[in-house]
Amino acid sequence: METAWDHRFAQRTQRMQSSAIRELLKLVTEPDVISFAGGLPGPDVFPIKEFNQACTKVLIEEGSLALQYGTTEGYQPLREKIAEITSQYGIGVTADNILITSGSQQALDLLGKTFINPGDKILTEAPTYLGAIQAWNAYGADFVTVPSDDDGMITDALDHALRYGPKFIYVLPNFQNPSGTTLPLERRKQLVDLAERYGVPIVEDDPYGQLRYEGDHIPAVEVLDCRIRETNSCYSGNVIYLSTFSKTLAPGLRLAWVVAPPEVIRKMVLSKQGADLHTATFNQVVAYEVIKNGFLDEHIHLIRKVYRERRDAMLNSLAREMPAGVRWTHPQGGLFLWATLPEEIDTAQIFTEAIKEKVAFVPGASFFPCGGGHNTMRLNFSYSTTEQIEEGIGRLARVIRKFISIE
Amino acid sequence: METAWDHRFAQRTQRMQSSAIRELLKLVTEPDVISFAGGLPGPDVFPIKEFNQACTKVLIEEGSLALQYGTTEGYQPLREKIAEITSQYGIGVTADNILITSGSQQALDLLGKTFINPGDKILTEAPTYLGAIQAWNAYGADFVTVPSDDDGMITDALDHALRYGPKFIYVLPNFQNPSGTTLPLERRKQLVDLAERYGVPIVEDDPYGQLRYEGDHIPAVEVLDCRIRETNSCYSGNVIYLSTFSKTLAPGLRLAWVVAPPEVIRKMVLSKQGADLHTATFNQVVAYEVIKNGFLDEHIHLIRKVYRERRDAMLNSLAREMPAGVRWTHPQGGLFLWATLPEEIDTAQIFTEAIKEKVAFVPGASFFPCGGGHNTMRLNFSYSTTEQIEEGIGRLARVIRKFISIE
Repeated sequence: METAWDHRFAQRTQRMQSSAIRELLKLVTEPDVISFAGGLPGPDVFPIKEFNQACTKVLIEEGSLALQYGTTEGYQPLREKIAEITSQYGIGVTADNILITSGSQQALDLLGKTFINPGDKILTEAPTYLGAIQAWNAYGADFVTVPSDDDGMITDALDHALRYGPKFIYVLPNFQNPSGTTLPLERRKQLVDLAERYGVPIVEDDPYGQLRYEGDHIPAVEVLDCRIRETNSCYSGNVIYLSTFSKTLAPGLRLAWVVAPPEVIRKMVLSKQGADLHTATFNQVVAYEVIKNGFLDEHIHLIRKVYRERRDAMLNSLAREMPAGVRWTHPQGGLFLWATLPEEIDTAQIFTEAIKEKVAFVPGASFFPCGGGHNTMRLNFSYSTTEQIEEGIGRLARVIRKFISIE
Repeated sequence: METAWDHRFAQRTQRMQSSAIRELLKLVTEPDVISFAGGLPGPDVFPIKEFNQACTKVLIEEGSLALQYGTTEGYQPLREKIAEITSQYGIGVTADNILITSGSQQALDLLGKTFINPGDKILTEAPTYLGAIQAWNAYGADFVTVPSDDDGMITDALDHALRYGPKFIYVLPNFQNPSGTTLPLERRKQLVDLAERYGVPIVEDDPYGQLRYEGDHIPAVEVLDCRIRETNSCYSGNVIYLSTFSKTLAPGLRLAWVVAPPEVIRKMVLSKQGADLHTATFNQVVAYEVIKNGFLDEHIHLIRKVYRERRDAMLNSLAREMPAGVRWTHPQGGLFLWATLPEEIDTAQIFTEAIKEKVAFVPGASFFPCGGGHNTMRLNFSYSTTEQIEEGIGRLARVIRKFISIE
């Protein structure tokens, strides 16, 4: 049906592509598909009992507050609590540095709205988080990428990329989405050195930092940035740091946050006023009630235990089932690993066959804003049980073997 | 503290102004201020008991679903329920026409993202809803306005304004925010006739339509648009219709929706994917649980009763207290009324004095995207009790009397 709206879409609307991940998520609803496609937390680790208690307490004691409009910056006790948690990781900030967002996706959107003019260059890893590409495409960003290896961004290639004059560098140092890699300390230092030399600020996206299953915590890029600048403060302000409750509490709440200099927070608040006024008060008050007495630390122990088993099940199944020529990363944490097939294989074709065998993944090409990655795939290990992982990797290996033998 | 972010804000960021309403909302937190400034529902009509029951039921029976990621379009049973409610008002649509948004503000933002190129003209009433001005300013919209009187948009002036070639017409026909006026049937007909003649589509924003305290329901602009086009369908597709649960359930949930042709919904879904992935699953599932068996109709009766008393208290207090030269609208529903002072008075100056006397309102100028309205003010009557309204209007009248006697 033709309507008066049909020829009225904005130019930016033409640029928007449906997220492969979002479309793939719909497959998860078919119960017999084993999906390694989404970025879904395992529902068996949702703290349902604690949420139920918190909802009741909040509604009885503070219902008028929790159901009412709130301030754009976020619920003040939650901002203070997040500042406290952030400070435990060496980033010394107060509530004035915190903006609560409706999921990390909104943080990325507000960064685009606040900073990106059409044609601005944004420097990312390749591959990088699809949601960032989507969010910033809408504001007309161009991307400059730095290649990655098993240790994440190859910082030796950064100097060259910085000469394009990017507005900022976007990096996911811990258990990166999609690759599962972690940027080692030396590369983080090289990153902040080069960023400082070129005067380019950094967006550090850290949704999974607390979900480490082996190895030692590596200081945040922001912490290292402070050290090289020798500021008295322990927050330099040159790094905007993003994190979320989606992986540690539950994604269905849509609660995340931005850590930034107060002047940036003020501008992002204006962007957010126009975008959704504020993040749901109820969700913020309930989340605060759940975490205020230290529940998060205890709960993260449980998540780490469950996800570590799933990661190990996937690594073991891959080693057992995959034919020669398939390589994969060994993530020290997070939700994903990344497989690379022989150069001549197209994982988009494998995807079509895999779906017929009732197993799903995300073909890697979507994570490369400047092209490439046709022979790669992202595999999620947090959502499925160990039994499903073993069965699913078996199915996937059978499909891949057909392609490798054909070639 | 200077940071590397300071000189990197996008051009659109320079255009963004803090919403007067948002800033004023902060005053509400001072307990001795009687605030007619916000657009806050009365917290005494929040259905706290029903929410508590629904939260418990949802978490126990469907916790894994309610706390998980969801689809961008929205929770399917809620989309279907909203299609059913919409159809009761004569707009015949299915779930495919519904997009759930994170409050109506997000619906406005997504309309901007999907349709507005920098320099596009948007036709609005003057005064119009501040949130729409804010949302569309971020996309570089220019505004063309049509003046209003006590019956809303003066549609006789519409023909002239349409010659500017606006991308769409934005109108709030019922109990408009900020003015409280309602567009009569004849003007609605003239609006759809002219829109059809110029081939310009309409955004009909209807957050308050169900909150009518007197008079008969007037068919939606969309319904009249269908009639003149003599389509067989009862949804013509030329009007995008917006509504929300913020005024009938609770604003702290951030739940609203767009009714649009499926092709527009598909494009807006892409905009929303980049903006916040999806609206909080938990809120959608809980709201569905609360309303699925007809609670909304019953609850709206209560809200109407309470708000009608408050509106009457405000109208009576104004008649009793205000000096000659002050006029105000007589809203048949909604949350606001609109006062006009003598031409030589500036309500921004009155605001400063009123705050000292512990009473707040919104100076009217912010609601005029092309200037004007310096002698007007918006008064909210839903948030305060009848006693507070009487006391607050008394305080306000004393301040205004000083200004009128000085002049």
